[in-house]
Amino acid sequence: MTTDLYNKKMILQNKQRDGLIWAAAKLFRRQGYSGTGLRDILAASGAARGSLYHYFPDGKEEIGAAAVTAAGGLVTETFTELAKQSDSPADFLHRYTELLVRWLEASKFRDGCPITTTLLETTPASRPITVAGQAVFADWLAALAAMLARHGWPADRRAATATAIIAGLEGALMLARVQGSAQPIHDTAQALCILLEMPEKESL
Amino acid sequence: MTTDLYNKKMILQNKQRDGLIWAAAKLFRRQGYSGTGLRDILAASGAARGSLYHYFPDGKEEIGAAAVTAAGGLVTETFTELAKQSDSPADFLHRYTELLVRWLEASKFRDGCPITTTLLETTPASRPITVAGQAVFADWLAALAAMLARHGWPADRRAATATAIIAGLEGALMLARVQGSAQPIHDTAQALCILLEMPEKESL
Repeated sequence: MTTDLYNKKMILQNKQRDGLIWAAAKLFRRQGYSGTGLRDILAASGAARGSLYHYFPDGKEEIGAAAVTAAGGLVTETFTELAKQSDSPADFLHRYTELLVRWLEASKFRDGCPITTTLLETTPASRPITVAGQAVFADWLAALAAMLARHGWPADRRAATATAIIAGLEGALMLARVQGSAQPIHDTAQALCILLEMPEKESL
Repeated sequence: MTTDLYNKKMILQNKQRDGLIWAAAKLFRRQGYSGTGLRDILAASGAARGSLYHYFPDGKEEIGAAAVTAAGGLVTETFTELAKQSDSPADFLHRYTELLVRWLEASKFRDGCPITTTLLETTPASRPITVAGQAVFADWLAALAAMLARHGWPADRRAATATAIIAGLEGALMLARVQGSAQPIHDTAQALCILLEMPEKESL
């Protein structure tokens, strides 16, 4: 096979594999990991029957872990991109919650965090999914800690503040879905902003 | 039937029904709603096969809603009890997170919030479970708002502060399960305590 043909084949294969992963991630986000069958993933992706076993020989857990990694990676990219555009930690939070609310409302409160439901259903029982979740959270925390560092947040408080931001947003997303309202996100963001705007940052 | 016999029968029936609900709540908490079969619930409760259909003629969604109501109600009671014993909102939060961490560690990080997983899997698609979740969150928010009121928190900020506390704790519980560590709960509680101990409460 020439290099060109080989490259084309690899691109096609990656495209098929990605199609399966994103179809899975969308379904898991809306109806959970256990509530989504392999058939649903195949139907949503339009991939051929055999492709699931070809790309994910270890079965559903392997797709679950790949979906957590892919969807979590997209959030990390969003964090990093917004951090570049933000003037302060509070400004970052405003921009991110604006995005969250827009997504949530567009989906009529059906699409929350793309990885939480899967993680709560499978952690710590599934080792591959737990490991994928841990890696995603480590990336999120690192992205937020870097953003806080850029705005002069004390080094010894960055990790805890980043954790509190992620915890607050995750919990708020869950409350928003159940209540069918963006209010919990606005309330939580407001509380987090007060923390982020405190003049004596050293005290946090 | 004499009143005595009738009462005894009612107590026994309620006991069987409660047994099914709590067995379901425990399983949903650990492995999710979709991942738990009616068979698992029957086996865990030790109830007779027919009893599920007798007490829950509408099937699994009815058990799901009852489990959310029961487990959520226990949290409301805990909030109310701890609020009575607490000297300040921050003291309340310390007491509650101490309980959370003890439960989580005792279960080796398998048992998180007893209702979140089920709600994320089923909301808003399942109307009965969504409604049960909304009622539970309304009770939690009311219990926390009453606690804040008792300690002089401004009336117009109670609902938002209570929401931020619940969001932070829910998100922290999820992070703690995935990371297999209580650190996210400690970090989030510390951030929330700073908010709760701010001298100018009016600014929140």
